[in-house]
Amino acid sequence: MKALEDKILNEGEILPGNILKVGSFLNHRIDVDFIMEMGREIARLFSDEKVTNILTIETSGIPIAVAAAAAMHVPVVFAKKHKTGNLSGELYKTVVHSYTHGTDYTVVVSKEYISSQDNVLIIDDFLANGKALEGLIDIVGQAGASLAGCCCAIEKGFQNGGDDIRRKGIRVESLAIVDSMDDTGIIFRSV
Amino acid sequence: MKALEDKILNEGEILPGNILKVGSFLNHRIDVDFIMEMGREIARLFSDEKVTNILTIETSGIPIAVAAAAAMHVPVVFAKKHKTGNLSGELYKTVVHSYTHGTDYTVVVSKEYISSQDNVLIIDDFLANGKALEGLIDIVGQAGASLAGCCCAIEKGFQNGGDDIRRKGIRVESLAIVDSMDDTGIIFRSV
Repeated sequence: MKALEDKILNEGEILPGNILKVGSFLNHRIDVDFIMEMGREIARLFSDEKVTNILTIETSGIPIAVAAAAAMHVPVVFAKKHKTGNLSGELYKTVVHSYTHGTDYTVVVSKEYISSQDNVLIIDDFLANGKALEGLIDIVGQAGASLAGCCCAIEKGFQNGGDDIRRKGIRVESLAIVDSMDDTGIIFRSV
Repeated sequence: MKALEDKILNEGEILPGNILKVGSFLNHRIDVDFIMEMGREIARLFSDEKVTNILTIETSGIPIAVAAAAAMHVPVVFAKKHKTGNLSGELYKTVVHSYTHGTDYTVVVSKEYISSQDNVLIIDDFLANGKALEGLIDIVGQAGASLAGCCCAIEKGFQNGGDDIRRKGIRVESLAIVDSMDDTGIIFRSV
């Protein structure tokens, strides 16, 4: 998505540790008019699939998932990283490794909200090593639901998580794929 | 908002500890078509204010904030409960007491994203004791910004947080106010 590549070039900052900071529009401040446009692009990409609901993970996947859901007129379910008091009933659970924080964490989804009748689109803001997506794919499998595919706003192509999932035969679309980034600039993969 | 009251009556569950569970449409599964309608109602309520941006707090305030922002064509900034690696630069910080978890937690907002030029609308999903809103109001004050008001989807009127803030002369609008809830049912405040 050319508009997203331009936005990354104009507003993104490269921080130590291969961090691409896009807090000005995607995951701290949210440029809502822009993410609604991204949502319409995701709806277009998956218009050949009868998606019944979108699965994302808190926190920063939520805005882009809501934007896509608004364009597709389907509900969003977000996986929770911490079990809270108002999650009652049976849960799907999976363990995700976070390279950023160097720890494993458990994410949960209430069994009420994904069933074997669903065709689920998984959405997240970033795709790097792919561990969060793999956790969500595991939850879709536990539910016995179909997986329409995965869609991320920004993929770090050089960290291979997206390509690893594609090699399993799962459709992964990213609105922008960064193949390299350093002091000299950012190179996007042609998609 | 009559449609929200009906939704709460049809889908809400009262759990022990004064918890009103609305996970089927507001804070686990998100009925996106419905929250977009709530967003349009928030835009209507605050149409007399020149709101420049919306401030919310992760996690479950984000969907409703994004819905309102889509209707108002302004950005959202969400306060973060945990300092993460990709928050660089100067931060506004405030401490919020959580009655649900029995602990204090620090929330942060990058100083880049709220300035003294802004007229901020604070949005959250629930308003009970008001501690989260008070934290966000404190952040707006630290920024030297104007406060257009606060808007919550569901206020627990019997926990007084909303009325305490109103008594300070701050505009607080809630789309539904629950004045009592028990085994016999839910009574809404006329608004």
